[in-house]
Amino acid sequence: MSSIDSLLRPTLIIQKERCLRNILFMEHKAKQQNLMLRPHFKTHQSIETGRFFRENNITKITVSSATMAQFFARDGWDDITIAFPVNIREIDAINELSSKINLNVFISDLKVLPFLKSHLKFKTGVFIKINTGYPRAGIEYSNLTDLDTLFLELSKNKFLNFKGFAVHDGHTYQVKNIDEIHNIRENTNSILIKLKHRYEAAFPGIVNSVGDTPSCSISDNFSGIDEIRPGNFVYYDIMQYFLGSCTLEQIAVAVACPVVDVQAAKNRVIIYGGAVHFSKESIVDKNGRQIFGKPVHLFNNGWSNPISDSAVVSLSQEHGVVEMPSEIISKINPGELLGILPIHSCLVANLMKESLII
Amino acid sequence: MSSIDSLLRPTLIIQKERCLRNILFMEHKAKQQNLMLRPHFKTHQSIETGRFFRENNITKITVSSATMAQFFARDGWDDITIAFPVNIREIDAINELSSKINLNVFISDLKVLPFLKSHLKFKTGVFIKINTGYPRAGIEYSNLTDLDTLFLELSKNKFLNFKGFAVHDGHTYQVKNIDEIHNIRENTNSILIKLKHRYEAAFPGIVNSVGDTPSCSISDNFSGIDEIRPGNFVYYDIMQYFLGSCTLEQIAVAVACPVVDVQAAKNRVIIYGGAVHFSKESIVDKNGRQIFGKPVHLFNNGWSNPISDSAVVSLSQEHGVVEMPSEIISKINPGELLGILPIHSCLVANLMKESLII
Repeated sequence: MSSIDSLLRPTLIIQKERCLRNILFMEHKAKQQNLMLRPHFKTHQSIETGRFFRENNITKITVSSATMAQFFARDGWDDITIAFPVNIREIDAINELSSKINLNVFISDLKVLPFLKSHLKFKTGVFIKINTGYPRAGIEYSNLTDLDTLFLELSKNKFLNFKGFAVHDGHTYQVKNIDEIHNIRENTNSILIKLKHRYEAAFPGIVNSVGDTPSCSISDNFSGIDEIRPGNFVYYDIMQYFLGSCTLEQIAVAVACPVVDVQAAKNRVIIYGGAVHFSKESIVDKNGRQIFGKPVHLFNNGWSNPISDSAVVSLSQEHGVVEMPSEIISKINPGELLGILPIHSCLVANLMKESLII
Repeated sequence: MSSIDSLLRPTLIIQKERCLRNILFMEHKAKQQNLMLRPHFKTHQSIETGRFFRENNITKITVSSATMAQFFARDGWDDITIAFPVNIREIDAINELSSKINLNVFISDLKVLPFLKSHLKFKTGVFIKINTGYPRAGIEYSNLTDLDTLFLELSKNKFLNFKGFAVHDGHTYQVKNIDEIHNIRENTNSILIKLKHRYEAAFPGIVNSVGDTPSCSISDNFSGIDEIRPGNFVYYDIMQYFLGSCTLEQIAVAVACPVVDVQAAKNRVIIYGGAVHFSKESIVDKNGRQIFGKPVHLFNNGWSNPISDSAVVSLSQEHGVVEMPSEIISKINPGELLGILPIHSCLVANLMKESLII
C-alpha cells in the first residue's frame, strides 16, 4: 500500500523496483566487461537506497566528501573512495576513517603531498586524479613531469598506498549526441592504458577507474578500464533521458508537489516545489525553452509518462510554475498532487527533506 | 576572536554588524514612509539571524511555508504571515499554528475556499494574493468578478479574517536598470490603491503589503502601501549588487571554501564548494559570462572586495571552478580558504549545513 495520497509537502518518491533494476543493469554490464562496480553514493545520500545496493551484493562504494564517507561508514560500509581532491583541512576525519575502513582518497594537486606525508597516521589508498579534458580537477594526463615526481614520493611513503588512476569525464553530460560520448570514452581509455603501461612495472596492479553515468550507461568500450564509479544511474533523470543514457521507464524518482494555484486562463499551475527542492538545474528542451522539470500524473504505485507539451518553466524559492495544455489544467484543483521528474536527481535528492519509497 | 581560520568545510560566514546595519536601514526607511516592516525570514531560516531582528524590536515576520512558520513559532515568534498560496494539505499545521499565534495565510485561488471554510478551526488572517505582472501566483488584479466573489465569501465566514492585499513583484529581480524597478513599484502602488478603495467601505483597515527587496531597497514611493515584506536585504548578495539594490559593503554573507586544487597554468583553482552549497543560481556578468559567485580574500574579521577579473565559472555537485588572474593564483595553495560572495543568498543559506557568525 502506497501513501502518496497522504503526502503533505514536496516529497521525493523513490520506486524501489526501478532502482533495483537499474542496479542490476549496471552490475550485469560490469560483470560482462570484467569491471569492478564501485557506485557513487552522492546521488542518493540515503541509507535506504544504499541498502538496495547491499541487497545486490555491492560492497565497495564512492562518495564525494569526508562527511559522506563518515555517514555511510556508520551504516557499515567499509570500503569507500572519496572521489574528490583531498581536502587536507579534514585530515582528522580522514585519519579516523582510515583507522577503521579501507579508505581511498584522490590526489589532484602535488602540493598536498608534504602535508599528507607529515599528517597521515594510517595506510590510505591513493588514486591519482587525471584530467583528460573536462575543465575541472586533476593532473593533466600529459604532465609526465608532475606524475613522475608524484610516483617517486608515493614510493617513499608507507601510508600513501597507490591504487590507480581516476578520471571523471563530466563533459559527457554536455554533449550534443551519443557519438560524442563514445569518443570521450575511447579517448580516456587510451590515455589510461598508456599511463598504466608507464608505471605498472614499479606499481603492479594499477586500477584504472572512470566515473560518469552517461558513458557507463551507453558505452561498451571499457578497454583498459578496471573500475567504474557511476552514481546517477540508480535514479536517472530528465537530463540523462535527454542525453540518451536511459529510458523514461528507468527514471526511478519523482517529486510529489501540492498544487496551490490553478490559472487555467494562463495555461499554468503553481506548485509547492521550488529551488529549495529542485535546485536551479535546467536544460533546454527541443523547443529551445529552458525547463526545470517535467510534470507527470501520480498514481498509487508510480507515475505516468511526462504530460505532453508541459514543463516546469520557472522556479523561485518555494514556488514552481508549470505550463500545461488547458485540457489538462481544467481537470486539476488546488490541493491535488502533481509529480515532477527532476532534471538532475543528485541535486534534488540532496535537497529533499522528505522521501517515500514505494 | 573569529575562527574562520579553523573551518574545515564550506561554511556560511555571517557578519553580524552588517546584518544589524541592514536591518536598521530598512527599519529607518519603513518608519520614514510610515510602513509596517514584516521581514521575510525565508532568506536566512536561522534562529540566530532571526534574533538580530528581535534585538531591533521587530515582532512581525513573514515566512514561505507552514514548516518555516512552525520553526520560528517554536522560537517565540507569534505574528507570522505565510507568504505562499495556502497549501490546504497542511491544514492541520495551519490550525495548530492559528490556535497559538497570529497567523496570516495567502489566498491565491478561489477554489481553496470551500475547503478552508469547512476545515479552519480558528480565526486566521487572510491576505488576498494579487498578481500585478510577475508570471507566478495570484488573482489577476483586473479580475473583479473573482475578487467580488471572494469578498462575499470572506464576509460570511467567522474564521477567515480578511487583512489585506499582498503582492510580490518578483520581476524587479529581472530588470535591466533601476528605472524599471521604480516603474514596477509605481504601477503596483496604483493597482493596490484602487483595490483598497473598492473594498474599504465594507472592510475597513485594509493592509496593502508588498514584498520584493529591490524596490524596498531603492524606491521612495510607497504611496498606498501599508506594509513591506523584504527578506533578502538582511544578507544581500551579488545579484542585488548587480541590480543596484545594495553596495558591496552591505553584503553580509560569504561562503568560506577550502581550496583543493590549484591549476596555475589554467588560471583556475578548484574549491570544495559546489551546487550543494550554492544551488545553481547564476547571473551574466558585464563580459557576458555566466557566473555562480565572486571570490574574495577572507580575513579574520571579514573579507575583501571581490578579486578583480575573477569569478566562479562552474559548479558541479561539490566542486566549484574559480577563474582568477595568474598573479593571484600563484599565491594560493591547496588547504587555504577562499571566500565566495553568493549570487543568491537565500538559496545558499537554505543549503548550508554549517555557519559561523562573526
